Amino acid sequence: METTHPGYIDDKPSLERRLKRIEGQVRGIGKMIDEDRYCIDILTQVSAVTSALESVALSLLDDHLHHCVAHAGEHGDLEEKLTEASAAIARLVRS
Amino acid sequence: METTHPGYIDDKPSLERRLKRIEGQVRGIGKMIDEDRYCIDILTQVSAVTSALESVALSLLDDHLHHCVAHAGEHGDLEEKLTEASAAIARLVRS
Amino acid sequence: METTHPGYIDDKPSLERRLKRIEGQVRGIGKMIDEDRYCIDILTQVSAVTSALESVALSLLDDHLHHCVAHAGEHGDLEEKLTEASAAIARLVRS
Amino acid sequence: METTHPGYIDDKPSLERRLKRIEGQVRGIGKMIDEDRYCIDILTQVSAVTSALESVALSLLDDHLHHCVAHAGEHGDLEEKLTEASAAIARLVRS
Repeated sequence: METTHPGYIDDKPSLERRLKRIEGQVRGIGKMIDEDRYCIDILTQVSAVTSALESVALSLLDDHLHHCVAHAGEHGDLEEKLTEASAAIARLVRS
Repeated sequence: METTHPGYIDDKPSLERRLKRIEGQVRGIGKMIDEDRYCIDILTQVSAVTSALESVALSLLDDHLHHCVAHAGEHGDLEEKLTEASAAIARLVRS
Repeated sequence: METTHPGYIDDKPSLERRLKRIEGQVRGIGKMIDEDRYCIDILTQVSAVTSALESVALSLLDDHLHHCVAHAGEHGDLEEKLTEASAAIARLVRS
Repeated sequence: METTHPGYIDDKPSLERRLKRIEGQVRGIGKMIDEDRYCIDILTQVSAVTSALESVALSLLDDHLHHCVAHAGEHGDLEEKLTEASAAIARLVRS
C-alpha cells in the first residue's frame, strides 16, 4: 500500500548513499571472484555487505514504526500495520 | 594470500551470475527508495538480498573447505588455514 | 516498566511450555558434552535451540506490538514504546 | 560417528560452565514470563542467551576444525569431515 510520504522520507538521502555504497561493494565482490582472489578475503567482504544491509533494514524499520505505525491509528489500520511489521521483522531475523 | 587456483574455480560462472543478480537487486532497492515505495515492500527485498548473499558465502566457504583446507596439509599450512576459516565463519555467523 | 497485563498474557502457557523444552534441550547439550559426544551432533542441537529461541522471541515481539504498542496511544507513550520495540528488534537481528 | 576424544576435550570444563549458565538464563526467562514481566525486558534476555549459544557453537566449531578435521587426513575421511563441517556451518548461519 503506497503512502503519500513513506516513513523514511527524512532519511532518503542517507539511505540512497548507503545503498549506492553497498551496490559498489557487491560489484567489487564480483570483481574479486573474476580476479581469482582468495576465498577468505572475499568472505570478509560478503560479511561486511551483509552487516551494512542489516543496518539499512533496521533504519527502514525504525522509520516505519515511528511514522507509518505511529500514525496508523488515525487511519484506522493499526492492526494491519502491526501485523505487516511483525512479519517483516520475522523475515529479517530469519534471513 | 593469493592461490594459483581459488577453491571456487569450478563455481566461478555461477557465483558471478548470482552476484550480478544481487547487484541488480541492490540497485532495485535504491530505486524503490527513490520512488518513495512502501517501507515493508523494501524490507522484503532487503531480506531477500541478505539471504542470497548468505548463500553465496556458504558456497564460497564450502569450496574453500573442500579445496584450500583439504590441500593445506600438502603445503604444511593446515593450522593457518583452519584458523582463517574459523574466523571467517565467526564473522559470517555474527553478521 | 511493568504493565498490569503483559502483551503475551494469552500465550503464557505455550511460551512457558516452549521455554521448558528449550531448557531441557540446553541441559541435553551439556550432557552430550559431558559424554564426549561428537561435535557435529552437538552443533546440530545448538542450531535447533537457537531457532527455537528465535521463534519464542518473535512470538513475544508480535504480542508486544499487538498489545503494548497498539494501546500505547491511549497512555500517551507511543513514541517511547516504538523506540523500545525498535531497539529490541535491533538486538534480536544482531544476536 | 563417535571419536575416542572429541575435538573440544580441552574446552570441556568451560563449555559445561557456559551451558549451565545458559540453562539458568533460559529458566530465568521462563520465570520472567511466569511473573508477567515486561515483554522488552524478556526480549533482552532472549537476545543475550542467543548470543551466548552462538559463542558456544563457534567454540565447538573451532575445536572441531582444529582437531577432528585437522586429523581426518590420517584416517582417510577428510572429505566426509569437510562435508559434515560445511553442513553444520550452514545450519548455524541460517539458525
